Amino acid sequence: MTINTTPIDELIEVPAGLRGVIAAETRLSDVRGSEGFYHYRQYSAIELARGCTFEQVWFLMLEGRLPEAAELDEFTNTVARLRKLPDELLPVLAAATGAEFRPMIGLRTALSMLASVLDLPPLWDADPATCGRDALRLCAMTPTILAALHRLHRGLEPIEPQPNLSTAANWIYQLTGELPDQRAVRAIDRYLVATIDHGFNASTFTARVVASTGADIASALIAAIGAFTGPLHGGAPDRALESLDEIGTPDRIDDWVRAKIRNGDRIMGFGHAVYRTDDPRSLLLRETALEFGGARVDFATTVERRVVELLAELKPGRSIYANVEFYAGVVMELCGIPRPMFTPTFAVSRVIGWTANILEQADTGKIIRPAARYIGPAAPQPVPPVVSRR
Amino acid sequence: MTINTTPIDELIEVPAGLRGVIAAETRLSDVRGSEGFYHYRQYSAIELARGCTFEQVWFLMLEGRLPEAAELDEFTNTVARLRKLPDELLPVLAAATGAEFRPMIGLRTALSMLASVLDLPPLWDADPATCGRDALRLCAMTPTILAALHRLHRGLEPIEPQPNLSTAANWIYQLTGELPDQRAVRAIDRYLVATIDHGFNASTFTARVVASTGADIASALIAAIGAFTGPLHGGAPDRALESLDEIGTPDRIDDWVRAKIRNGDRIMGFGHAVYRTDDPRSLLLRETALEFGGARVDFATTVERRVVELLAELKPGRSIYANVEFYAGVVMELCGIPRPMFTPTFAVSRVIGWTANILEQADTGKIIRPAARYIGPAAPQPVPPVVSRR
Repeated sequence: MTINTTPIDELIEVPAGLRGVIAAETRLSDVRGSEGFYHYRQYSAIELARGCTFEQVWFLMLEGRLPEAAELDEFTNTVARLRKLPDELLPVLAAATGAEFRPMIGLRTALSMLASVLDLPPLWDADPATCGRDALRLCAMTPTILAALHRLHRGLEPIEPQPNLSTAANWIYQLTGELPDQRAVRAIDRYLVATIDHGFNASTFTARVVASTGADIASALIAAIGAFTGPLHGGAPDRALESLDEIGTPDRIDDWVRAKIRNGDRIMGFGHAVYRTDDPRSLLLRETALEFGGARVDFATTVERRVVELLAELKPGRSIYANVEFYAGVVMELCGIPRPMFTPTFAVSRVIGWTANILEQADTGKIIRPAARYIGPAAPQPVPPVVSRR
Repeated sequence: MTINTTPIDELIEVPAGLRGVIAAETRLSDVRGSEGFYHYRQYSAIELARGCTFEQVWFLMLEGRLPEAAELDEFTNTVARLRKLPDELLPVLAAATGAEFRPMIGLRTALSMLASVLDLPPLWDADPATCGRDALRLCAMTPTILAALHRLHRGLEPIEPQPNLSTAANWIYQLTGELPDQRAVRAIDRYLVATIDHGFNASTFTARVVASTGADIASALIAAIGAFTGPLHGGAPDRALESLDEIGTPDRIDDWVRAKIRNGDRIMGFGHAVYRTDDPRSLLLRETALEFGGARVDFATTVERRVVELLAELKPGRSIYANVEFYAGVVMELCGIPRPMFTPTFAVSRVIGWTANILEQADTGKIIRPAARYIGPAAPQPVPPVVSRR
C-alpha cells in the first residue's frame, strides 16, 4: 500500500453527500434500481437465492466463481469449524447483554474484543491469505456471538455451534435449541443469500473507508455495523412486522395508513432509496412466505397490496413498493426466529458482503480521504488575552 | 434528517480516493498545508496551545467562541465530574487487557459497551442538547478508560479520577498515581490542545460518514478509532521515539538514515501528507521540549536537524520535515507518560475533534453515500445448475 502525499490545490465540487460520486470500483455486486435487479459477481442475486446454498454464494463472493462440489464441501466444513468462540469472549458477551437488549451493539463490542483476542493484523502489508482467513473467522463467529447474546439476555446458556449443520440451520438451532425443519432452513438460507450484499450502501462504504487506512478487518467491520445501526441506513424487519401487528385486521388497513401519512410518519417496510419498481428481494420473500401459507401470510399479502394502492393514491408519482424488510419479517417469524433477532439475522449474511468489500478495498492499497470546505469565520483572528487563565 | 431518494442516473468521475473532493462543509478547523498553518474555528491552533487551557479550547470547539471566566469554571467542573466510569464497564476493561496490550482497541471495545450501558440514542432526530451531553460524557470518560486499561494490564488497580484536576493533570495522575508538576501539566495541556483536530483526516471523515447515517455518537467514534489504527492514517509518537533509541548516539545518525532509505523503510516521525514546510505542531513541541532541556532533548534536536539534512540530500525535492509525532514522543517521555500510552494521549484530545465533527455532521441531516462503479464480468449470466446441491 502507498499513500499519495501530493497536496491538493483545488477543491472539487460534487453533489451533497457525494451522491453519484465514484468512490471505489468493485467486482462484487451492483444494483440496477430502475430495472429492479441486483447481482453478485456475474449472477443475479435472486437466481442465486433460488438455486444455491448460502455457503455456495459466500464462496462466490470471495472467489468470483461458484465452487466445485469438493471445494464446496471443504469450504462448508471450514466455516462450520470456525464458528466456535474463544473463551475470553464470554465475560464480554455476558456484560454486553444489559437491560436494553441491543444485539447489534453487543455484536460490535464482541467483534472489537475479538480483534484483541485474535490479535488481528492490520490489512496494510498483511498477507492476503491471512486476511482472508481472518475474514472467514469473523463471519463464522458472527452468528455464534449473536445467538449467545440472545440466550444470555434471556437467562439461558449459550448453545454450542453444531459443525455438521449449515449456517442457516445452525443459526436457527443456536437461537432456539431445536433442530429446524427443512422448509425453515431453506427459507432462511434464501433470505441470507438475498441479503449478502446490495451495492454501495452506507455501511459498505464505511467498511471500505476504514479498510482503506490499512486497519484490521474488525475495525472496518465494527465501523460498518455502527453505520448500519443508523436510522437513515435502513434495515429493520422487526419494525415492518410491528406494522402488521398495529393494523391487526384487514378492515383497519385504510385508517391506519391514512393516519400515518397524515402524521408524516414513515410506513415501515415500504419504499427504497434505489428501487423505483418492486424490490426483487421482496418478490422472492413473498414467494417464500406463500410456500408456508396460512392466515398470517394471507394477511401480510392483503396489507401489502392495499398499502401500495393507498400510497399510490396518497403519494402520487412516488412509486412506493414493499421493500426487503416487509416479507423478511414475515418469513423470519414463520421460521421461528425471535423478533429481536430479525435484524441480527440480516447481519449474519451482510457480514459476508462487508468483509468481501473490506478485502477488495485493502487490495487496492488506496486511502479514501476526501476534503472538507472550511466555511467558518476567517482565520487567524488574534486570541483574546482576557480569557486566558495562564 | 431527511434522505434523498432520487436515483442517480450518471456516475461522477473524480480523482482516486476522492482526493480533493468536497465531502462536507465545516466550521471547526482547517489546515493550510503550504502555509504550515492550521486553525480551530477562527484562531490559530498553535496560538491557542500557547495561551489557553485544554478545557478552554474544548469549549471553543463546541461553541465556536472561547468561554468567559464563569463559563469556563462551569465547563471545567462539568467535564471533570463526567470522568467517572459506570461500574458495568469494569469487566469489559479487565477482559480487554490481553497479552498483547492494544489500548486503542481496548478503548474501542469499552466505548462500544458504553453505548449499551448509557443507552445512547441515535443522532437522528435526537435532541441536540442530549447529543451534546453524550459527546461530553464519552470525551470525559475516554482518558479514564485508557488509564484503567493501562493499569489493569500492569496488574494495578485503576485510579479514580480526581474532579479537582484539569484533564491534562488528571491524565498523568491516573496513569502514574502521582500528582504531576506544573511544567509537565502545561506541556501535556499544550500537546492536547495542539492535537484536538487537524482538518479532514481519514478518521474524522470516517466519524462523519457514520454520523451521517443518524447512528449514535459511540458508533461514529468507534469507527473513527478503527480508521485511526490504520497504518496509512499515521499517528504513533512511540514509533518516532523508537527511532531515537535505535540511533542511540549522534555519530550513528548518518548510517542509520542511509540504511533506512536503502531498505525503502519509512523514517518514523518525519514527513506529512499535507505539510510541505515545518509541521507547526512539531515547532511548538520542540519549543516545549527545549523548556525541559537535558541530554535527551539535545540528542533529539541533533537527530532532527541531521535527518532533515540527509532527507534533503537523499530524497531531493520532497521537502520532508519532522512531523507532530517526533517531538510529541520526546515531550511525553519528559512528562512521565509511559510509552504504550503515547498514542492513547493523542486519543484523549482527538476525541474532542471527532465528536465535534460528529455533532456538526449530524446537524446537517445529510447522509454521505457515494457510488461505486461495477467493473466485474457482465451480469446476469445463467447460474450453472451443476453446482447446486438443492
